[in-house]
Amino acid sequence: MAAVITLTTDLGLTDAYVAAMKGVILGINPEAKLVDICHTIKPQNIAQAAFVLSQAYPFFPAGTIHVVVVDPGVGTERRAIILRTKSADFVAPDNGVLSYVTQQSSAWEAVAITKPQLWRPKVSTTFHGRDIFAPVAARLSLGLPPTDFGSVITSVITLPLSQPSQAADGSIVGHIVHIDGFGNLITDIKKDDLPKGKRALTIEVSAQLIGGLSHTYAEGKGLLALFGSDGYLEIAVKEGSASAFLAAKVGDEVIVR
Amino acid sequence: MAAVITLTTDLGLTDAYVAAMKGVILGINPEAKLVDICHTIKPQNIAQAAFVLSQAYPFFPAGTIHVVVVDPGVGTERRAIILRTKSADFVAPDNGVLSYVTQQSSAWEAVAITKPQLWRPKVSTTFHGRDIFAPVAARLSLGLPPTDFGSVITSVITLPLSQPSQAADGSIVGHIVHIDGFGNLITDIKKDDLPKGKRALTIEVSAQLIGGLSHTYAEGKGLLALFGSDGYLEIAVKEGSASAFLAAKVGDEVIVR
Amino acid sequence: MAAVITLTTDLGLTDAYVAAMKGVILGINPEAKLVDICHTIKPQNIAQAAFVLSQAYPFFPAGTIHVVVVDPGVGTERRAIILRTKSADFVAPDNGVLSYVTQQSSAWEAVAITKPQLWRPKVSTTFHGRDIFAPVAARLSLGLPPTDFGSVITSVITLPLSQPSQAADGSIVGHIVHIDGFGNLITDIKKDDLPKGKRALTIEVSAQLIGGLSHTYAEGKGLLALFGSDGYLEIAVKEGSASAFLAAKVGDEVIVR
Repeated sequence: MAAVITLTTDLGLTDAYVAAMKGVILGINPEAKLVDICHTIKPQNIAQAAFVLSQAYPFFPAGTIHVVVVDPGVGTERRAIILRTKSADFVAPDNGVLSYVTQQSSAWEAVAITKPQLWRPKVSTTFHGRDIFAPVAARLSLGLPPTDFGSVITSVITLPLSQPSQAADGSIVGHIVHIDGFGNLITDIKKDDLPKGKRALTIEVSAQLIGGLSHTYAEGKGLLALFGSDGYLEIAVKEGSASAFLAAKVGDEVIVR
Repeated sequence: MAAVITLTTDLGLTDAYVAAMKGVILGINPEAKLVDICHTIKPQNIAQAAFVLSQAYPFFPAGTIHVVVVDPGVGTERRAIILRTKSADFVAPDNGVLSYVTQQSSAWEAVAITKPQLWRPKVSTTFHGRDIFAPVAARLSLGLPPTDFGSVITSVITLPLSQPSQAADGSIVGHIVHIDGFGNLITDIKKDDLPKGKRALTIEVSAQLIGGLSHTYAEGKGLLALFGSDGYLEIAVKEGSASAFLAAKVGDEVIVR
Repeated sequence: MAAVITLTTDLGLTDAYVAAMKGVILGINPEAKLVDICHTIKPQNIAQAAFVLSQAYPFFPAGTIHVVVVDPGVGTERRAIILRTKSADFVAPDNGVLSYVTQQSSAWEAVAITKPQLWRPKVSTTFHGRDIFAPVAARLSLGLPPTDFGSVITSVITLPLSQPSQAADGSIVGHIVHIDGFGNLITDIKKDDLPKGKRALTIEVSAQLIGGLSHTYAEGKGLLALFGSDGYLEIAVKEGSASAFLAAKVGDEVIVR
């Protein structure tokens, strides 16, 4: 079956780890269409993987299977899960990496992956991506129902996702949640978080003030603030890196007045 | 339809931006075969993208669709275009990124992409790669004619491509146009630019002199000059990096006497 | 035919070289399924390519064709070969890059690639990956027998693979053969190299002593030693980089007492 299977990992681009997963998948479902989401998640950075996944999964066709292998607890008692939403399946360790998915889905079901007969015959203690997640995703893509892989569970681990708050003076206090490859600072502030009615806004970040919102990266000069393609307020520098310019980091406050 | 769609972008390897484009494409044409050309073009570097694309597109089968997203003007009035040559289609911003393609094609047609009904329903101002170029490429791959996407245009923006010139003393003055991942310095000098008849050549670059041409990277020692696999004169260092050795940069002169 | 073709190269991620190979393959076999193993092998590092390939090829389905382009001798008299084992084909320069494959295969046959009519019509002296290996792999994937490409040869070049030895005091002296993207130090020591019977082991590396083996990366603190997913003894740091911590390098001794 020509299902799409995506991969999001911290396995990097200098080893054969991702390819080994792909080999296992193609051995079970030769028709699977494999798509890389990202393999340069910082080692063991679950929050980053959760965010990067959230930037891509909504754009895939219904029925896509998303495999996430950012798994600092591999080989320990942490659970492995299949999470099914109305439009996609996710195969991942139960460590919070699906926090945006569960937050953004009106309904989901999950099972704990516990049936070794659907894994590789020999399972290492250090690479469940290859030995458990890959064969489970491949067999899911052949049409096996999630409940063939283990028992239904009713809760999964979620991370506390960064949220903006309102200060006493009415300003919105958000945070940088991601710095992209261009050096754009992506915050947790969405359009709906701002007061309605177009008053003049000032955005403060790293002790810099930005007057008003831009619509494109090409507008104006120097520091810009705009709502990016995923709906979050972003800080950018025209043809430059806001991250380098401001020495900002994930978690820093961004205030909209 | 099992069309090949390639992607050349500056979107990097640390985000989900490229994957979001692929998800959009597969949602429209599940049979599309996606091939990455390069995603590490330097941000907004149109000339680099144009050159890197020119190293790959001639080797793809007829009918391949090449999508290029190096788009500093995204969201502004810059046009988006489909350019059709005898052997391939190109979907890109009209910013010069197809300059080698138009130079190397005996004939081409182009349309300005203007019909929003063939885009994603919601179009951001900052990521037309996902919201316009990806769905347009996917629908082209289903067989829609370019004119379904907008009106024919008769000129597109081209960059002045680097060209060697002949000095008063007969020597050829070329330029470094690209530095590859091995540190090889690729120039704009082709074999036909050199005088016929095999006289002894001397190549000057960064105040170093190289006597004669090599045929392979393994020949000789130290600095080499040879005609590379795309037909351009290259400066290389045997099992080393000419770029690091010479501290050369794109635009530097290379003189053949 | 929907054969799987994998690519392992030192061609990097900043050029179009790998894409040119893929274009050539798809022009010959549009149904080929292309999988990247790794393109960030250090330039001309045959030993690294041999090891990285060995981490992935055993996990691919029977009949997979693995192309390796780490080829410092390109254009010289070095041979190009097809090597067929019971489960896969390999297309590579004959420079030792298949040393793990021949060591790990009970039987293999090889041919020297010598028939230019099965290559690209025009062959450069500097990029046989595109001009010879890619078309040969594509035509192999269409079902042509290896002997169509040249004559059988009975020996291929192999590298002396790193092996542990036993010291006079009974301790096992191994070596670091690979440092992965996490900074884990992968050695040449396999479980079978250690004495049977579970005595207390001490592992020495870079003048540090590690007491006993862990089962997972999440166990304990600081430096760990464990058998990794490919069966080799690895030195790791919990949620850190053993490579950075120890300033270790490939070739360094690791001693198990």
